[in-house]
Amino acid sequence: MTVAMYQPQSLASEPTPFPLDQWYVAAHAWEVTQQPLARTLLSHPVVMFRTAAGEVAALEDRCCHRALPLSRGTVEADGIRCGYHGLLFDQQGSCVDIPGQLKIPAKARVRSYVVCEQDDLVWMWFGRDAGAAPAHQPPRYDVHSSGKYLYKGDVYHYDAPYQLIHDNLLDLSHLGYVHLHTIGGDARTHMNARMTVEEQGETVTVKRHMLDSVPPPTYVAAYPFREKVDRWQEIEFRVTHLRIWTGAVDAGSESVDDPDRGGFHMRGFHGVTPETATTSHYFWTIATNPKENLQETLQKVVEQTKFTFDEDKVVIEAQYNNICQFDHPSMIDIHVDIGANRARRMIQRLCMKE
Amino acid sequence: MTVAMYQPQSLASEPTPFPLDQWYVAAHAWEVTQQPLARTLLSHPVVMFRTAAGEVAALEDRCCHRALPLSRGTVEADGIRCGYHGLLFDQQGSCVDIPGQLKIPAKARVRSYVVCEQDDLVWMWFGRDAGAAPAHQPPRYDVHSSGKYLYKGDVYHYDAPYQLIHDNLLDLSHLGYVHLHTIGGDARTHMNARMTVEEQGETVTVKRHMLDSVPPPTYVAAYPFREKVDRWQEIEFRVTHLRIWTGAVDAGSESVDDPDRGGFHMRGFHGVTPETATTSHYFWTIATNPKENLQETLQKVVEQTKFTFDEDKVVIEAQYNNICQFDHPSMIDIHVDIGANRARRMIQRLCMKE
Amino acid sequence: MTVAMYQPQSLASEPTPFPLDQWYVAAHAWEVTQQPLARTLLSHPVVMFRTAAGEVAALEDRCCHRALPLSRGTVEADGIRCGYHGLLFDQQGSCVDIPGQLKIPAKARVRSYVVCEQDDLVWMWFGRDAGAAPAHQPPRYDVHSSGKYLYKGDVYHYDAPYQLIHDNLLDLSHLGYVHLHTIGGDARTHMNARMTVEEQGETVTVKRHMLDSVPPPTYVAAYPFREKVDRWQEIEFRVTHLRIWTGAVDAGSESVDDPDRGGFHMRGFHGVTPETATTSHYFWTIATNPKENLQETLQKVVEQTKFTFDEDKVVIEAQYNNICQFDHPSMIDIHVDIGANRARRMIQRLCMKE
Repeated sequence: MTVAMYQPQSLASEPTPFPLDQWYVAAHAWEVTQQPLARTLLSHPVVMFRTAAGEVAALEDRCCHRALPLSRGTVEADGIRCGYHGLLFDQQGSCVDIPGQLKIPAKARVRSYVVCEQDDLVWMWFGRDAGAAPAHQPPRYDVHSSGKYLYKGDVYHYDAPYQLIHDNLLDLSHLGYVHLHTIGGDARTHMNARMTVEEQGETVTVKRHMLDSVPPPTYVAAYPFREKVDRWQEIEFRVTHLRIWTGAVDAGSESVDDPDRGGFHMRGFHGVTPETATTSHYFWTIATNPKENLQETLQKVVEQTKFTFDEDKVVIEAQYNNICQFDHPSMIDIHVDIGANRARRMIQRLCMKE
Repeated sequence: MTVAMYQPQSLASEPTPFPLDQWYVAAHAWEVTQQPLARTLLSHPVVMFRTAAGEVAALEDRCCHRALPLSRGTVEADGIRCGYHGLLFDQQGSCVDIPGQLKIPAKARVRSYVVCEQDDLVWMWFGRDAGAAPAHQPPRYDVHSSGKYLYKGDVYHYDAPYQLIHDNLLDLSHLGYVHLHTIGGDARTHMNARMTVEEQGETVTVKRHMLDSVPPPTYVAAYPFREKVDRWQEIEFRVTHLRIWTGAVDAGSESVDDPDRGGFHMRGFHGVTPETATTSHYFWTIATNPKENLQETLQKVVEQTKFTFDEDKVVIEAQYNNICQFDHPSMIDIHVDIGANRARRMIQRLCMKE
Repeated sequence: MTVAMYQPQSLASEPTPFPLDQWYVAAHAWEVTQQPLARTLLSHPVVMFRTAAGEVAALEDRCCHRALPLSRGTVEADGIRCGYHGLLFDQQGSCVDIPGQLKIPAKARVRSYVVCEQDDLVWMWFGRDAGAAPAHQPPRYDVHSSGKYLYKGDVYHYDAPYQLIHDNLLDLSHLGYVHLHTIGGDARTHMNARMTVEEQGETVTVKRHMLDSVPPPTYVAAYPFREKVDRWQEIEFRVTHLRIWTGAVDAGSESVDDPDRGGFHMRGFHGVTPETATTSHYFWTIATNPKENLQETLQKVVEQTKFTFDEDKVVIEAQYNNICQFDHPSMIDIHVDIGANRARRMIQRLCMKE
């Protein structure tokens, strides 16, 4: 598949297709090894690999000689060697060896990308000014590092633009229609959940409470609830990723607003990174707090989460295909769209910002 | 697959890609059930379903909220409910329920289509004026309802524009080259058949007689002919469908012009409905009058008809692919093209008509 | 798959996408039989077949009546008959029979192509002036006809433009990176080979010598070398094909410049014929001079050559895909590119030539 590459804007006042000056998730840490990993991010074809020193390197995925993807080459102690004529590039993208040739031209280099490995995630900085250093560090995600949770994750590819995934995650009212077999539960309960939406800086927070409701299949499978539950969904949208805290306690047993509430917890990380303007990478992890049978319970939660996210992918890709088929029709809003619409306006402002 | 949607013309004097103010076949009656059926017709993505009352409903296949195809939803007593956030649309396309929301905006509606179920066929009206009622009832097809014939049918999808299917059906001289194994017979006999062509109103009729000819394999398999036969092919082209009466009597036994002639009959219905300007739906049924072993003989005729239509599909799609490859080359006409060319001119006039 | 057809230029001074007034390889002789062979060459869809007299005929692959590819028809004693309505075309492209019609219109003809079968190759002439006769005979390739070598070959389809295949064949320094398992050998040896490049008329010759080097796997498998070898690679590029003489003698045993040198020989013929501007046909044969176990040794050499060319195809298609992904980026040259760059300049001159 050929994807058109995003060309940096010459006029800073024109809108960009994606918010820039942001850290995006480029990979799960465990994906980056001594085998080159090819991935297009924000329309940049990139090769990632782990150096002998264990660091993550990220280069433009194109040998500057005859354009073979560097990801078809081999990782060596000092960098990555092209699989066609053997040019070697170091972690900064400089060509440091042309076999059979003494002089290396100054132009023999490829672009390198700023990456930061942290909390089991590889973040990549995409700035408006390709040469400038990041304005700040990538965000921490201590669910991965605190040791309080067990978690696993995966990366899904979407034939749909990234904002449709935001819409989906910011509006969990769809659970009762799309996810009947896992985390859904009664549709009316979901559509009638008490909802609050807050916007602060570059964050939109949506909270939904479903008190005295029937626990859905995944909850029953993973936790010994007595009967009905008080259930919460707390969605924190940030520009390049979302954190979704969901869970439940036995109905009436304790306050769902208490930060130290007990019960069953699912903590989801959702890195939504554009591949191109019309396709996306979806990096997710799901963490939970099993009471017993730790690995077995984690496995159940992960399997049901995969099943759930597979359902979302089918819906969102069908939705996008239909949007194209109807040539981007106008849409009407309903009550559950408040959070998603705020996020869309925020993205739009960031894409316009000089 | 994404298909471009036809947008109604703003200037009535511009040609339309398809004749409008016509009833087109949208489905066989047995295809429309309580499971939604998605089908694009004349570039309109449509969902069809059968209501609790047994009526056929046809709506624009797009929820007005977030554009998921309604065909991914579920049919309820009162209409179809979207599979994403549960909006419910009645048979007229009005949204009648937004779960969790009391007020339903007036704009919350999708287009509905005029359909008529008759003679085991579902017809759909496509007018120049989207809002206007049909100018007349759909045509009757009493072969399906008279009880005099046994019949079965199917729907084929074509990667070719609808008029190439017209061409094929209006010129049965190809039988001797394309359908050797079923209804073909000797090529020279077909190319030399006595042919008459008549045009009247919006109908073109082609009649071909092959007297004292060798019966082809399908005829021999289905009917106890003594030896040679007098064979007829009567093709009635109408704008959106064709009726093809074929058959044979023992040579010299009776007049092939007699409307009450006996012998072996195959009565074909051929609904040719554009999916888009370059793809088509082909709805067909084949009816026959077995003398004995009724179901077994019907089954033979249907199987051989399927085989025959599979051969046509291969030829027509190869033809269209080549027409594109050669960028719509000029073509020369031969003696058998008279009927097809009249039909093409009729379609052209209808597409230009104000 | 639909390919856009090349339309002859109206202005002779505009560049053509391919050098014209050239003989291109259209097929291996053994591919052309009484079964029609469809192949697009220089954007011309062509059908080739062998007449009853054993001659190769090549016609435009389109019936002039309704555009079905003639390659879907059947070869008869006098030509090829269309599989739709039976029009018969002779070897010159004239329609000589319209079943059921006495008069054959003068326009009923398709283009025929000038072909010449020689040395087990079918050459086709593509002139700037479609009607003009070839300016000269196709080149001889006596490796196929001299009886001094055993050989076999195949044809590969490339999703890449033809000049990327030229580049690959003119720069054998890639052997040490791409073909480790067959004809590669030590990468440094290849990159440091003594190289001479000569250009004369429409020929570029590249010679590379690797003295006192380790013989690669294919050489060891096919010939009883004592230990190290003196190895040569002689590449003769012509506009539409390349001849590549490679081989080795025991190190120090005789001069690698001697035209009568002994040792192990591989003689490769490489016909590189554009299918379209972005796709190619690659016709190759490999000849060798087994000392013993003739067929078995030939088979080994052919198998390892196929393996080698499969590796090239993977690299070149990945390269082209990446060139498109990066929207034709600028490239830097290294020392091994001299021969390939000369060939590119020659092609460019020929495409500009009036």
